[in-house]
Amino acid sequence: MAASTASRLSPPCLHAAPHHPLRRSRFSPLRAAKLEAVLSIGTHVIPHPRKVETGGEDAFFVGGDGCGVFAIADGVSGWAEKNVNPALFSRELMANSSTFIKDEEVSQDPQILLMKAHAATSSIGSATVIVAMLEKTGTLKIASVGDCGLKVIRKGQVMFSTCPQEHYFDCPYQLSSEAIGQTSQDALVCTVNLMEGDMIVSGSDGFFDNIFDQEILSVINESPGTDEAAKALAELARKHSVDVTFDSPYSMEARSRGFDVPWWKKLLGAKLVGGKMDDITVIVAQVKTVVIPDDEVDL
Amino acid sequence: MAASTASRLSPPCLHAAPHHPLRRSRFSPLRAAKLEAVLSIGTHVIPHPRKVETGGEDAFFVGGDGCGVFAIADGVSGWAEKNVNPALFSRELMANSSTFIKDEEVSQDPQILLMKAHAATSSIGSATVIVAMLEKTGTLKIASVGDCGLKVIRKGQVMFSTCPQEHYFDCPYQLSSEAIGQTSQDALVCTVNLMEGDMIVSGSDGFFDNIFDQEILSVINESPGTDEAAKALAELARKHSVDVTFDSPYSMEARSRGFDVPWWKKLLGAKLVGGKMDDITVIVAQVKTVVIPDDEVDL
Repeated sequence: MAASTASRLSPPCLHAAPHHPLRRSRFSPLRAAKLEAVLSIGTHVIPHPRKVETGGEDAFFVGGDGCGVFAIADGVSGWAEKNVNPALFSRELMANSSTFIKDEEVSQDPQILLMKAHAATSSIGSATVIVAMLEKTGTLKIASVGDCGLKVIRKGQVMFSTCPQEHYFDCPYQLSSEAIGQTSQDALVCTVNLMEGDMIVSGSDGFFDNIFDQEILSVINESPGTDEAAKALAELARKHSVDVTFDSPYSMEARSRGFDVPWWKKLLGAKLVGGKMDDITVIVAQVKTVVIPDDEVDL
Repeated sequence: MAASTASRLSPPCLHAAPHHPLRRSRFSPLRAAKLEAVLSIGTHVIPHPRKVETGGEDAFFVGGDGCGVFAIADGVSGWAEKNVNPALFSRELMANSSTFIKDEEVSQDPQILLMKAHAATSSIGSATVIVAMLEKTGTLKIASVGDCGLKVIRKGQVMFSTCPQEHYFDCPYQLSSEAIGQTSQDALVCTVNLMEGDMIVSGSDGFFDNIFDQEILSVINESPGTDEAAKALAELARKHSVDVTFDSPYSMEARSRGFDVPWWKKLLGAKLVGGKMDDITVIVAQVKTVVIPDDEVDL
């Protein structure tokens, strides 16, 4: 039985919200000399339950002027089957990124940072990776290869989200030690203009595969700071990841791609559900302004 | 009964795809003098079934150098209850946009275009609006207020998507003739670096409320050109919009926000489903390169 939603469900909304609460300051170039955007960053990592002793294969770094840069790399675990430690590539990629960020040529361009860090990485392996850089004017520059993710939350709603890149289900684009992998040229490259108070939530696929947007919004809303938010988000995703009854974003996506339990289990009413055990890395960043005293202004 | 997805569903993917098919040319500034990105654009509009005679309340324009700019405005229908024709505001906003795009100051910045076009619009009413501008280097600049949408498709997958902004379910942010509405300062502003062959699909909420991403990908894949793709996409969304049994993106979103059929219908097994009847506007654009002869190069 069906009921059409064709008629309007909500009341008219011509005067939905007062004007002024929506008006928040952008970091305009004119004002940038005295008012600069910076990030207040919290991070939390929970390794795969079977990789706790080795720390897992995710790696990240936070740095840049005013902590305006962060990156996450997720080592592709399939390399373990070739007796290669999948953590080596992701860790070296992040270490190289944290070195090159001091280079003037790359400090404004996340795609160039990826190119240089990738070229300098000598470990065998591959990794998905995301880099985000906040300019002092409030512009966030993003480069992403694969299925690490980043969302921007403004006024309690997701106003920007990256999309994953993959070859097929569960096989993301990846920077690799092998010529057959992708390069920084394959990255999704985009920028978003941010405002004071905006929250950025970034993570490896182990995070976004195990948590829904509405849950992220609730946790962000209830957390007193970015450290607490990152920890609470990672722990919620971790709880879901080991819950075989949780209908996770990962299991929903798997079913939509045609994966499911065997037919005889389906006859018994079963369906493919459950979290996805994985390394979970979460970075939460809040956009803040700092006033630069006149004598420090770089004109 | 549950079956965990915790184990990997897909085979290892270290050598998932050949390298070379992924390598496509970007329009680097170095090459921009001779190779420029342009859009090949197709459009299609289907008014709300009850507004066929008046043409509906969506409006759009395509213009700019090399057809590199397009915009969609969706007049908020609630104004009809105040005896105001909701089409006037959206149409004037688009007419003003098409005028101001010739202005050098706004031709590179969709947010400034929105600001100027909004300020010049004297009709009573309000509208959601999205503007997209492709630079010759391949960078797409987007400004969006409300729930018009834009997706970029690369190699058969959605690699970028805007997020809607709303006050509450079915009540989007909107540029308005009244001071209580939003302004261009409230816009989502972002840019994406595009490649030759990328497809852009943009539309009013009447389009995205009635079609799933997988359907968009299928239609784009099967269509010989942008005109045919826009027409086929609009017609598929239109078909879903009048289907009271179709579990549309709109009805799924409504249920997730707590809307549903009355409890006694629920007891009979009913749930809130159906398309959403609305004006449907679709713009499909393909990124192409043109070679500029040496004597036309502007150095």
